[in-house]
Amino acid sequence: MPYVNIKITREGATPEQKAELIRGTTQLLVDVLGKNPRTTVVVIDEVDTDNWGIGGETVTVLRQQG
Amino acid sequence: MPYVNIKITREGATPEQKAELIRGTTQLLVDVLGKNPRTTVVVIDEVDTDNWGIGGETVTVLRQQG
Amino acid sequence: MPYVNIKITREGATPEQKAELIRGTTQLLVDVLGKNPRTTVVVIDEVDTDNWGIGGETVTVLRQQG
Amino acid sequence: MPYVNIKITREGATPEQKAELIRGTTQLLVDVLGKNPRTTVVVIDEVDTDNWGIGGETVTVLRQQG
Amino acid sequence: MPYVNIKITREGATPEQKAELIRGTTQLLVDVLGKNPRTTVVVIDEVDTDNWGIGGETVTVLRQQG
Amino acid sequence: MPYVNIKITREGATPEQKAELIRGTTQLLVDVLGKNPRTTVVVIDEVDTDNWGIGGETVTVLRQQG
Repeated sequence: MPYVNIKITREGATPEQKAELIRGTTQLLVDVLGKNPRTTVVVIDEVDTDNWGIGGETVTVLRQQG
Repeated sequence: MPYVNIKITREGATPEQKAELIRGTTQLLVDVLGKNPRTTVVVIDEVDTDNWGIGGETVTVLRQQG
Repeated sequence: MPYVNIKITREGATPEQKAELIRGTTQLLVDVLGKNPRTTVVVIDEVDTDNWGIGGETVTVLRQQG
Repeated sequence: MPYVNIKITREGATPEQKAELIRGTTQLLVDVLGKNPRTTVVVIDEVDTDNWGIGGETVTVLRQQG
Repeated sequence: MPYVNIKITREGATPEQKAELIRGTTQLLVDVLGKNPRTTVVVIDEVDTDNWGIGGETVTVLRQQG
Repeated sequence: MPYVNIKITREGATPEQKAELIRGTTQLLVDVLGKNPRTTVVVIDEVDTDNWGIGGETVTVLRQQG
């Protein structure tokens, strides 16, 4: 019955990659805690690089600085 | 003063339905806990079906399987 | 398949009141959007009044001011 | 290492304003708690006014009422 | 730079199991999306069974019903 | 009307420090975006170091390694 929220920057993750994150996270909860996969929910949020900051800078700026 | 976050898949909820969720949730907190509706906040997130997983599968795939 | 997170201050909500919030929210999603209640998840977070602010003040201070 | 999530209505915040929120929040955590800014993450969610409710009404409706 | 929040019921997960969830989730984001593990944050919330509902019932009640 | 959630590790933040985070964050939203402080909500979550991971390690382990 776990609920997992994964937040990543919106930089081109494909539907296949997102499906793999969902599959992998669900399996991890089965393997580590014996959780029921049927009621395990995983929600992925993709966030614009203007809206994500680390070290006080937006990712937009960090990407430009290389 | 409660804060409520409702996450649903983005599958065509109308503005009227979303207004009804906001009204209903706020009223529930008044009725059950006597909360002040004026500072009760409800935020609805609509999530793409590619980004929502249950049972290790994306909702996109589950909808295709019917 | 919705996921709902309700945040309230920790000020003595009883198990019965919390069960009523869970029941009511789940029913609301059935009534308004036709969601499947069996996979609808509701999580309630109770937050210390020192850790909740509104209007720039903690709820602890607001309660003292009456 | 803190994580901050700021939710605002989507009503035209500019990239500069969002960068300022990220910078200011990160600095606040340095000043108040001595946190390491390099691993401080700030994520801003902009939410449609149809999806944000306060006082049981959507912000869309509240804006129309002035 | 991803942020992951895992919510589970508070039912005795050990520090080792939680460390394994953190390790596994971080590795998954490296493997699937090539994310930098050094800035990948995972936060686990353990929620009382009275505060977690599924199917309109608290987990406390569901556990009693077996 | 913004909502801000600040997550920090539970390592002894005082009520005064938490009040300062709430005051500072609220003021930042007034200064940068002209938001109404009276409906600005700030919630602080303090998370056990066993439940917070960065770089694939729990903060408990990182603190031991100095």
